[in-house]
Amino acid sequence: MTTTPLPNFYAIIPAGGSGSRLWPLSRADQPKFLHDLTGNGHTLLRNTWDRLVPLAGRDNVAVVTGVNHTRQVTSQLPDLNPSNVLAEPSPRESTAAIGFAAAVVSLRSPDAIVGSFAADHVITDTDAFHRCVSEAYVVAQSENSLVTIGMRPTEPSSAFGYVEVGEDLGIADAPSAKKAARFVEKPDWATATSYVEAGTFLWNAGMFIARADLILQLIDQHSTDLADHLRALAEQFVSGGRDIDPDTWAGLEKIAFDYSVAEPAAEAGVMAVIPGEFGWDDVGDFAALARLHATVGDLAVLGKNTKVLTDAASGIVVSQSDRLVSLIGVKDIVVVDTPDALLVTTKENAQRVKALVDMLRLGGSEDVL
Amino acid sequence: MTTTPLPNFYAIIPAGGSGSRLWPLSRADQPKFLHDLTGNGHTLLRNTWDRLVPLAGRDNVAVVTGVNHTRQVTSQLPDLNPSNVLAEPSPRESTAAIGFAAAVVSLRSPDAIVGSFAADHVITDTDAFHRCVSEAYVVAQSENSLVTIGMRPTEPSSAFGYVEVGEDLGIADAPSAKKAARFVEKPDWATATSYVEAGTFLWNAGMFIARADLILQLIDQHSTDLADHLRALAEQFVSGGRDIDPDTWAGLEKIAFDYSVAEPAAEAGVMAVIPGEFGWDDVGDFAALARLHATVGDLAVLGKNTKVLTDAASGIVVSQSDRLVSLIGVKDIVVVDTPDALLVTTKENAQRVKALVDMLRLGGSEDVL
Repeated sequence: MTTTPLPNFYAIIPAGGSGSRLWPLSRADQPKFLHDLTGNGHTLLRNTWDRLVPLAGRDNVAVVTGVNHTRQVTSQLPDLNPSNVLAEPSPRESTAAIGFAAAVVSLRSPDAIVGSFAADHVITDTDAFHRCVSEAYVVAQSENSLVTIGMRPTEPSSAFGYVEVGEDLGIADAPSAKKAARFVEKPDWATATSYVEAGTFLWNAGMFIARADLILQLIDQHSTDLADHLRALAEQFVSGGRDIDPDTWAGLEKIAFDYSVAEPAAEAGVMAVIPGEFGWDDVGDFAALARLHATVGDLAVLGKNTKVLTDAASGIVVSQSDRLVSLIGVKDIVVVDTPDALLVTTKENAQRVKALVDMLRLGGSEDVL
Repeated sequence: MTTTPLPNFYAIIPAGGSGSRLWPLSRADQPKFLHDLTGNGHTLLRNTWDRLVPLAGRDNVAVVTGVNHTRQVTSQLPDLNPSNVLAEPSPRESTAAIGFAAAVVSLRSPDAIVGSFAADHVITDTDAFHRCVSEAYVVAQSENSLVTIGMRPTEPSSAFGYVEVGEDLGIADAPSAKKAARFVEKPDWATATSYVEAGTFLWNAGMFIARADLILQLIDQHSTDLADHLRALAEQFVSGGRDIDPDTWAGLEKIAFDYSVAEPAAEAGVMAVIPGEFGWDDVGDFAALARLHATVGDLAVLGKNTKVLTDAASGIVVSQSDRLVSLIGVKDIVVVDTPDALLVTTKENAQRVKALVDMLRLGGSEDVL
């Protein structure tokens, strides 16, 4: 258990993404990370912060978020140092978000180790999480590698990246650290199945730990142009200009960190993996949310004022009202009841919610997105 | 087609029943007959009135309804003669309702023929309906029989009464009139199946046509006490006291007309049946409502402000709001969206709604009933 922060360690929380698979709960103005999906009374963002502060110290946690969300983020995290609020003028995907934060940290502390952790995942067993990150920190320092924390797959899924676990790294203070033999982002279902069957692959859970300057160097290898812009924007930022220039930012390449950095790093032999020995869920859709809240009777209910009456029903009800919700003879149902939109689907169809949201966007129904 | 009202014919509309199988659309204060379930812009009660006025004339249509609903009834039927508003102080089932109305009519016009028609059924082809009632009127007059209009069963159902069609009555002005060989109210499912297979049974559709005094006489044969009380209450009513004495009324036997009058009449050989050659639906549950509104794509939508977005969904959406309703991959679904209660079930489970309403009643949730 970590009680003293790791020396010169900085945590980055990219808090972006609309979580459209959780629509109409998750909205553009109230994305997934601003919801209490565990029912513990705190938003996922706040839980993430609480988990990271013991590792990094409160002044070393930075949040990269959309400029529209900074007010909600700072209200959720009153102890967040204002100099660590990195407000993106527009969404540019994870390479820009993580790279910019790493560049800012690198300027402030050239030898810093950074760890990037999604704002909207659920982790149980915080002590085990802290132990894994501490090992990753050791590896990042001693091996100058990009370290990921890999989770044991529970099913073949083409929604995740897969890390092939290689040889033991033999580091005394990081006994579970392995070389990452390969990193494959979002393989097709057949490939995912073969990976799960092989038993030697772990899911990438969106956690990356490395020296800040290594991250910049890996981005540079992907695109010098992108790395240069990130460094320039970071210099403006640390010299006091807290507003990121929107035009420069809008010109940055939109690419996931997994493609630009993780896959090439594994290929270049500079990636390591720590098997995550804790509970983890990215709560990717309502089926995952239902799984998280499975209860006796198989009906999960989210929403503190919800009155639910059921007869032979299972699944999940998410309600933002105090209306009576009655379910009769519906199995694995998903009912999401919000003031202006109601969704009824099944756990099996949970992944199709995104397509419906896309349909709404194309149809110009921005008011409910 | 009837354009001139039938001489000395009185139509009775018992407008009672909460329609709990259509909850949460149908409520105690807004029962089924006060809803526009056909989407034609009128309530079922109003449609019933419009169908009967050409047969009886506007001054000869009486409505028997709960005292709580008289204001809504008269607002729906501005041409309803105030002397024909029969306000029940409490619900006492159909024998009391029809018997009381028949007693009132009988006092006003001793030779009157009355026809009783439910307030909350849907009938298509009004001309054919008029022709059938006209034949029933002829039979009621010439044979002094209780005449029902029977509908061809579409499936075995234990929710209806069954009339066994007997020999042709050979009445010139009522060519389709048959003797009713038997009347069986709500048989079990196996019996219902055998009746449907036999092909000689028709559903009782809650339409009874007879001399008013015959109805009183048949009630008398069931219970002299009940008939005496009905006659006494009717005398008070026609002599100007429009309020029915609540204590006397509350003491009346609660029994369906089908058991007290129809079954014994058939047994006594004084019942006739006219096969109904028109479209009829009692809209008994949401499956029936969906059937009534089946459209291309198999999703029916009721509610003028409803926005519905679907992906591989079928069934029915009934909405009283302008919320966006999204359905993904749910087949034969029933979604009823009201301000204080939401119901999600399937067409197959539509009959179970009543049990849930009973559960709510037992649980003291009268506010949503």
